[in-house]
Amino acid sequence: MAAVIDIEDPADGRVDDFRDLSDADRRPDLPGRKGSVIAEGVVVVQRMLESRFRPSALLGVDKRYGQLAADLAGVDVPYYRASAEVMAEVVGFHLNRGVLAVAPRPAELAVAELLREARTVAVLEGVNDHENLGSIFRNAAGLGADAILFGERCADPLYRRAVRVSMGHVLRVPFAHLPAWPDGLDLLRDRGFQLVALTPDPSAAHLAAAMTGERVALLLGAEGPGLTERAMAAADVRARIPMTPGTDSLNVATAAAMAFYERVRCDRG
Amino acid sequence: MAAVIDIEDPADGRVDDFRDLSDADRRPDLPGRKGSVIAEGVVVVQRMLESRFRPSALLGVDKRYGQLAADLAGVDVPYYRASAEVMAEVVGFHLNRGVLAVAPRPAELAVAELLREARTVAVLEGVNDHENLGSIFRNAAGLGADAILFGERCADPLYRRAVRVSMGHVLRVPFAHLPAWPDGLDLLRDRGFQLVALTPDPSAAHLAAAMTGERVALLLGAEGPGLTERAMAAADVRARIPMTPGTDSLNVATAAAMAFYERVRCDRG
Repeated sequence: MAAVIDIEDPADGRVDDFRDLSDADRRPDLPGRKGSVIAEGVVVVQRMLESRFRPSALLGVDKRYGQLAADLAGVDVPYYRASAEVMAEVVGFHLNRGVLAVAPRPAELAVAELLREARTVAVLEGVNDHENLGSIFRNAAGLGADAILFGERCADPLYRRAVRVSMGHVLRVPFAHLPAWPDGLDLLRDRGFQLVALTPDPSAAHLAAAMTGERVALLLGAEGPGLTERAMAAADVRARIPMTPGTDSLNVATAAAMAFYERVRCDRG
Repeated sequence: MAAVIDIEDPADGRVDDFRDLSDADRRPDLPGRKGSVIAEGVVVVQRMLESRFRPSALLGVDKRYGQLAADLAGVDVPYYRASAEVMAEVVGFHLNRGVLAVAPRPAELAVAELLREARTVAVLEGVNDHENLGSIFRNAAGLGADAILFGERCADPLYRRAVRVSMGHVLRVPFAHLPAWPDGLDLLRDRGFQLVALTPDPSAAHLAAAMTGERVALLLGAEGPGLTERAMAAADVRARIPMTPGTDSLNVATAAAMAFYERVRCDRG
């Protein structure tokens, strides 16, 4: 059972892991700082408790402790209980979700491990927006994609905003960085994954026709520029979502959702 | 050709329609104020110029005038040219898109008119988040949905943030408010639309199997609560997107995109 410890002084050193979350120079969730992973709100904290991320402490109001009591049974970490005012002084802003958990960053999963049972994975290049990244994980979780792999120039999926937007699914959907880009794609090809590059190019094959592999890796680029030429060249097939002429490409997380949906469309009818 | 008028004094009354865009008490885009429609950035301004929204004026830096010159040929409105600093003083914040257009709100389209040629429409209930609303319009434009209808308790699609997130597609995808809710759905049923209610309920039919109508109206509720019971009762069929157990429902704009995709999936292969 988590030990409840009341915090009355916002300067109390025991809650330093939650301090100044909005201060870009000191944020504990930046890899250059402590690189801690922060979960916000009851649902995301619950997902953290069920994940490989082991919280070292929680900070929250009394009401949230009540809502988490069952989840915290058997979890040996301190629950720093504070008023909303004290919490706001510690974290640097008013936090309407009322509870936070902090976990150290565990070692990253091995690519080979994460591919073992996977049927559908997304491989991201240049997705440097935390909100898009969080949404991709949320959509992957909801639509049954098995893992996310990172190529080059992607944002940190464990940044606080990404964790929040993903509704905690960055803690559950396995992810790893490829050791080289785009050469690391060979790790997927060697395991029989069909490499499908998503593009708005009208000359590409229709998404539904392109994804023929039993195992599929979807290559997704940043909104706007899309995949680089060399990523595109490394793919087995280029696929497009059918779009109305004269409109913009879809948001990258929406495009990913469409492809994940297409993968489960027939399976789970 | 738009007349270029240089503005050097931020207090100049001629740019009052662009004043204090970030001030919630005075924003010109609130229906309770002037209800003006504001387009931001070159792409969205271009979409406004191609739409039924007739701008009454533009405010922008010299560089953006150059980029819009061809679009503004034959458009008889003033282009108030100002420095980035003067613009920032007028609108109340630094605007990195560098150009704005303002248009009065035209009369809303008639529901009957907008349904005449439509094959796929979305009907929204309780979608009160401007970002979700904007994304729904963007996805409708991209994936070929023909119109958006509003039931009860939806946000204003012409609010500045919704216009921006939609990338200007709220100005192009036709929309209208149903005269009654949910009784106004009869207007759709009378025209042969199949009314399909989207729900995360696992007992509902698979999306791909449910949408059998030649004409389909997709009923979408707010994230979280979803459609109300009475909206659900007014539908012909309940449809679900196949989801992994234990995950959250998708974002409403993502769910809409999936359904729009399903509608065009076979058409445009």
